[in-house]
Amino acid sequence: MSLCTDLYEIRMAASYLRRGMTALATFSLFARKLPRDRGFLVSAGLADCLDFLQHLHFDNDELTYLADVVGLREDDLAALDELRFTGEVWAVPEGRVVFADEPFLEVTAPIAQAQLAETALLNFVTYQSSVAAKAARCRIAAPRADLIDFAARRTHGLEAARAVARASAIVGFAGTSYVAAAREFGLPAAGTMAHSYVEAFQDERAAFGAFAEDFPGATVFLVDTYDTLQGVRTAIEVAAEARPGGHLGIRLDSGDLGELAIHSRRLLDDAGFTDARIMASGGLDEHQLAALADTPIDAFGIGTRMGVSADAPSLDSAYKLVEYSHRPVMKLSSGKLTAPGAKQVYRGDSGEPDLLVLRDETPPDDREPLLRLMMRGGDRLDGPEPVAVAHQRFDRDLQWLPDTARLLTDPTQVEVKWSTKLRRLTGDLQRFLATRYGLEDTSSR
Amino acid sequence: MSLCTDLYEIRMAASYLRRGMTALATFSLFARKLPRDRGFLVSAGLADCLDFLQHLHFDNDELTYLADVVGLREDDLAALDELRFTGEVWAVPEGRVVFADEPFLEVTAPIAQAQLAETALLNFVTYQSSVAAKAARCRIAAPRADLIDFAARRTHGLEAARAVARASAIVGFAGTSYVAAAREFGLPAAGTMAHSYVEAFQDERAAFGAFAEDFPGATVFLVDTYDTLQGVRTAIEVAAEARPGGHLGIRLDSGDLGELAIHSRRLLDDAGFTDARIMASGGLDEHQLAALADTPIDAFGIGTRMGVSADAPSLDSAYKLVEYSHRPVMKLSSGKLTAPGAKQVYRGDSGEPDLLVLRDETPPDDREPLLRLMMRGGDRLDGPEPVAVAHQRFDRDLQWLPDTARLLTDPTQVEVKWSTKLRRLTGDLQRFLATRYGLEDTSSR
Repeated sequence: MSLCTDLYEIRMAASYLRRGMTALATFSLFARKLPRDRGFLVSAGLADCLDFLQHLHFDNDELTYLADVVGLREDDLAALDELRFTGEVWAVPEGRVVFADEPFLEVTAPIAQAQLAETALLNFVTYQSSVAAKAARCRIAAPRADLIDFAARRTHGLEAARAVARASAIVGFAGTSYVAAAREFGLPAAGTMAHSYVEAFQDERAAFGAFAEDFPGATVFLVDTYDTLQGVRTAIEVAAEARPGGHLGIRLDSGDLGELAIHSRRLLDDAGFTDARIMASGGLDEHQLAALADTPIDAFGIGTRMGVSADAPSLDSAYKLVEYSHRPVMKLSSGKLTAPGAKQVYRGDSGEPDLLVLRDETPPDDREPLLRLMMRGGDRLDGPEPVAVAHQRFDRDLQWLPDTARLLTDPTQVEVKWSTKLRRLTGDLQRFLATRYGLEDTSSR
Repeated sequence: MSLCTDLYEIRMAASYLRRGMTALATFSLFARKLPRDRGFLVSAGLADCLDFLQHLHFDNDELTYLADVVGLREDDLAALDELRFTGEVWAVPEGRVVFADEPFLEVTAPIAQAQLAETALLNFVTYQSSVAAKAARCRIAAPRADLIDFAARRTHGLEAARAVARASAIVGFAGTSYVAAAREFGLPAAGTMAHSYVEAFQDERAAFGAFAEDFPGATVFLVDTYDTLQGVRTAIEVAAEARPGGHLGIRLDSGDLGELAIHSRRLLDDAGFTDARIMASGGLDEHQLAALADTPIDAFGIGTRMGVSADAPSLDSAYKLVEYSHRPVMKLSSGKLTAPGAKQVYRGDSGEPDLLVLRDETPPDDREPLLRLMMRGGDRLDGPEPVAVAHQRFDRDLQWLPDTARLLTDPTQVEVKWSTKLRRLTGDLQRFLATRYGLEDTSSR
């Protein structure tokens, strides 16, 4: 996994090591600003980050490649051969709500180690937090329905499918269609039948009959292959003929889902199947879920648009050096100013702003620190945690989250107040660097 | 890998196998329509598809899971234990330009085998073809510049980073920053330095001096950490002092890239560094590349927006059963009508429409079939091919592609004409099914 990084990380690491630059660096991973229509993010991806750091090392084949193709020298290879992650990680536990400017995690380690991890850590947190937020918005839009992750077929690779199943479970999805992830994370695996199943039989009735016989406990009929309401009638007839106690559900996957659900509900109720559940799927996202909130749909399969976080497929995330060898650092690049120093976030009651402070500041009373120590001396302080623990955190934070941040359209994130010390350090360093590099004073914060 | 599928694929496969439904099914994988601002797609992902099919099988742990958690029976497990892919694959070779309605690939196999592969095949082709098309648009926008894949840090997982490196190489990118993919696919690895490197030294000059000493053959200075033009001057001074023959390049990563490139070019030329190359990066996509076409930028690092295909992060792709046991099939679901039967696409001269035909139709004269036989009896006909071969195909197709399809905004895809036989089969089957399921005749094509 250690070549899962950008080339420049390796070049920089080699250069640091050649020069004996082994002092501690702190890198801070955060989103500069939230995408349009995001009032919050949800911490996710940390488990993969810790796993990556724990296993950071180069094997012989990798070192040979770096010698032959990238041109590293013998002494570089010797140094990289010995390299392991020996540092410290502070991070926001998965499932917690996070805002722009707030670190998801901070790594403090000899600079070469922390530098090499940049690409992978950014990748894990950026994607998984994006998808967790997208899934959380689905849950906000349809708080009473069961939501099922159907995204695997159109995520960006199967690793992404795994991540979506986990991230959506963290925010309270009831299950996933993706079997590999269900197995790995102990999530309920869910699924019905495809149109191909219906088409492979001589007719719809034969297909439904076969499925009812084979899966009496999980019989959800896909009813829209030919004519939806006709499909519902056929489902009812097949269920009525099937063994007593068999389960009946239907899935709608095209057309006007709300209208079809109302008609289907009536047909099911009239036939005495008042317990039968209606599931809907097909290009859904949080906005369509909200529009379908008052229809008799009991469960939704949410796929592609959640899995690719369609309206915000990336974050303006950064993994920034904020301190090297006890010296706070920052860059001045236009529009990309970042605050120096290792940080902590304190959260108060709902409605109060979060406080962004330097990590060594005296903690404010009655406030909870968001970042927790996760690794020390390269060792994890705790083993991997069940998804359910992160889910409980999210449920608590969702209660806490103000309505303005929960809005599906034009939300406002919770205010993040910088401490006086942080503002002063940022301004002082900015002025110092501006003077040194001959810029006008651009401090504004 | 065989649990890398949706639960319903496994349930359906088990049901088919219980019922002795082992007849041949043909599934066709295609995009129903192109996203806005896409005049073409580029075939990519096939290598992963063939690899998946070649290795399709369930191991004991997977079967145990399916018994314990999904509730499969002993006879299901015995059947799945023996299951391998024994079928046939026709596919468009990677690198070729593809349009909506044209199959990327078609799988013909006993239905359980072909069904189980749906999720993974859709996933690979949908994402990789999307990204290849996005990268191809970057190449069209900046035909003379070197383009480097910088996407790894914000793709949807590291598997996606690998896929982007490969897909962008297929359409002619000059290199990738992502080392693991460069190594796996034999691509040039590229990269410069990060702001953190500059910040870790006492000042910018010390950082540049160290880097020039350590990497004389690949010295590209990142000049915008503090003040960009000041950074360029420092780069020039350091390069002038460094050993003769050292390479000089600069990278701009913020601000008005076009303006800064013009100023930087003048500074470099005035100092005698007329060979020094200017690279730009920072949130670029094809539209910004087009706007920067007439500036003195020699190379671009293209990252996030390409890697997530930001404006079209997914395709309306489908893997549809088109034939079972020699019987053509289709569904009638509103808005999702698909054409029955195994197909072939014939391509003519530039400016001519493509022809979509039934696979067993007589080939038209002077036209090239797009889909090629890739697997037969479960065996691959050829081993994995180098990325360069797919790249050559793309270069030829790019010459062929009409200007209207190359447009960055509001392009028009090449017309795909259906053969008379295909139209007739589609219409006949549609009428047959509509009558059978009591719908009005909705045939229109």
